[in-house]
Amino acid sequence: MDIKVIAFDADDTLFVNEPYFVETEEKFLELMQDYLSRQSLSQELFKIEIDNLGLYGYGIKAYTLSMIEAALKISDNTISVEAIEKILEYGKELLQRPIELLDGVEQTLEALFGKYRLVVATKGDLLDQRRKLHNSGLGKYFHHIEVMSDKKEQDYLDLVKRLDIKPEEFFMIGNSLKSDVLPVLNIGGHAVHIPFHTTWAHERIDHEVKHENFRALDKISAILPIFNL
Amino acid sequence: MDIKVIAFDADDTLFVNEPYFVETEEKFLELMQDYLSRQSLSQELFKIEIDNLGLYGYGIKAYTLSMIEAALKISDNTISVEAIEKILEYGKELLQRPIELLDGVEQTLEALFGKYRLVVATKGDLLDQRRKLHNSGLGKYFHHIEVMSDKKEQDYLDLVKRLDIKPEEFFMIGNSLKSDVLPVLNIGGHAVHIPFHTTWAHERIDHEVKHENFRALDKISAILPIFNL
Repeated sequence: MDIKVIAFDADDTLFVNEPYFVETEEKFLELMQDYLSRQSLSQELFKIEIDNLGLYGYGIKAYTLSMIEAALKISDNTISVEAIEKILEYGKELLQRPIELLDGVEQTLEALFGKYRLVVATKGDLLDQRRKLHNSGLGKYFHHIEVMSDKKEQDYLDLVKRLDIKPEEFFMIGNSLKSDVLPVLNIGGHAVHIPFHTTWAHERIDHEVKHENFRALDKISAILPIFNL
Repeated sequence: MDIKVIAFDADDTLFVNEPYFVETEEKFLELMQDYLSRQSLSQELFKIEIDNLGLYGYGIKAYTLSMIEAALKISDNTISVEAIEKILEYGKELLQRPIELLDGVEQTLEALFGKYRLVVATKGDLLDQRRKLHNSGLGKYFHHIEVMSDKKEQDYLDLVKRLDIKPEEFFMIGNSLKSDVLPVLNIGGHAVHIPFHTTWAHERIDHEVKHENFRALDKISAILPIFNL
């Protein structure tokens, strides 16, 4: 194994993210509770998010716009403008949440720093991810942030090309089997899955992963022995 | 002059952009015409855009969210939800505008391709810029897209570090003196200004630029003689 670049997913791999979206969705469900059941509200919002993915991409701004669209649609335009104002606020609150580092992240980055080129590989908003890395103090460990419009095989092929390395020199760490693991293994790279307790429905898969270049670990610092650290 | 990377701003350098925002603002002014004069509406919207820049960044999603916030604020929450629905539509229309290449762009990229590393350096949304490059057929000329959260000196220093080159090996082409030219000259790079007829207020400066590494040209193909092409 001759690894040149170790790439880390950001949200729910380096720091808490999905629980904040879940909390925000909770507020949205409460705001809209007169219109539909919780389950139907959640389904409608998810459907609109997925429909908008091609146009809006990932991230908090996309999510905020989809919440507004869902509120209009679900209420058949009978929602109050005060509710729209609240949704804008939810989005801004989400953008300003404090950073909560996951266990062992700093220790792991410190041990790898200087020995490998470390990058962040994320689907989120660049501005938002940069702010989180800066505020968390993790920025100094990373060579740069790679913002990917999606995390499919072609996106990873583009990424290793941009990094001027071969796929087998690429090592990816993340909490999503679908986005951080499977496409990386399929192009010949290495991948580690560190599960996080909350995973967005869109990121879930329903089968087991087995591959010689794959490892499932229960915390990020468990990758260090792989690199003899 | 030993140039390794030629970077192109995207919006209003490679393809038409600002006029589409102006058209969208025009629709917003019409939608809100009962509340304030055109000039006051425009000022209010601009103020909210700038206030949100730190949190939302640049791009169409940010602009759409700011239009919604402006509509609520200007109307003191008396606007109809149908108007909010229209603003969401304006944003989606803006995201789906056809690509209109500027004069000489394809010819210029074709002549430089293979001789220099060409990149796009933009403040816009990654997804949106990637879509525009893909749909325009220009994608094949570029090594990759650099999405910058801002275009200040530090952002360009980070960029040349990421590109593994010295500032004097960096050559930037764009339509904004403030964002594409001045910071690049200040870090020791080279810059060409190709003015576009419409410039967003936030990008304007009020003094003349003179520098040995600077050239003002009236069309993009005029850079070719600089590279003996």
